[in-house]
Amino acid sequence: MQNLKLNPLKKLEIILEGEHMEFATDLLDRAGVKGYTIVNQLSGKGSHGFYEGHVMFNEDDVLIMIITAVPEALVEPIVEGFTPFFNKHSGVIFISDIQVSRLVKFTN
Amino acid sequence: MQNLKLNPLKKLEIILEGEHMEFATDLLDRAGVKGYTIVNQLSGKGSHGFYEGHVMFNEDDVLIMIITAVPEALVEPIVEGFTPFFNKHSGVIFISDIQVSRLVKFTN
Amino acid sequence: MQNLKLNPLKKLEIILEGEHMEFATDLLDRAGVKGYTIVNQLSGKGSHGFYEGHVMFNEDDVLIMIITAVPEALVEPIVEGFTPFFNKHSGVIFISDIQVSRLVKFTN
Repeated sequence: MQNLKLNPLKKLEIILEGEHMEFATDLLDRAGVKGYTIVNQLSGKGSHGFYEGHVMFNEDDVLIMIITAVPEALVEPIVEGFTPFFNKHSGVIFISDIQVSRLVKFTN
Repeated sequence: MQNLKLNPLKKLEIILEGEHMEFATDLLDRAGVKGYTIVNQLSGKGSHGFYEGHVMFNEDDVLIMIITAVPEALVEPIVEGFTPFFNKHSGVIFISDIQVSRLVKFTN
Repeated sequence: MQNLKLNPLKKLEIILEGEHMEFATDLLDRAGVKGYTIVNQLSGKGSHGFYEGHVMFNEDDVLIMIITAVPEALVEPIVEGFTPFFNKHSGVIFISDIQVSRLVKFTN
């Protein structure tokens, strides 16, 4: 890929119960995230919060995944912003490296 | 990211026909996977199993994607567990590197 | 993972308005992509094209995400093929590294 200029960003995949969507998107907006995409009506199985230990849940069509791409500097404030939430509620944040061909959509 | 402690895991994205969901989640449960998220009603186009070679399929709303995060040691047994299945059926497993902020949800 | 032979590919996650699905899948077909999976009815918020600058959109259930895995050599022609489109329309392409256990489904 000699000619294509790609830029590194961090992808966040935030999986949580749909009823908490507005909490999550408000947090992202305040952190300065410029856009996100939401996958609705996910099913899932997992542990129900950290304090409740290993209580399992099975959920049909109630989870959502919010996908967003952010500069690396935003990862820590976002993850820390969600930490109290995920102490009490189901869900997780996956962080991974991606590249995009232009940065204008993701930075201020 | 000086203060945020992130831990590496492997993300598996397992795409297969929804009718085989229980086979897949049983395999994951037996492998020791602690949780997963399922995206329903995917469409797709691809090759229909390895033995059938390049026969193409077009499928509407019948595929699912099971997303899970596992310690690296679980990748090989899970992929090998699925190999006979994917020899006969549509689908694929994508493996990628992710980070999560806490490991308790993903390890025993 | 001593015994498992994994092969590197690039994953493309192409998010765009569902009305343009056929444009996108035609472009992928012509580029030589062997298969893809489509997540339907996504919601999203983001900037509406590059030329329109920072006009924001809010869209419910009209976005799709096309997921495909390709050899690295296909990334540049595909991203360049989409560039004029994303100059005018909402959406983005995320590029990331994945591994798959067999290449026959992804290469010619």
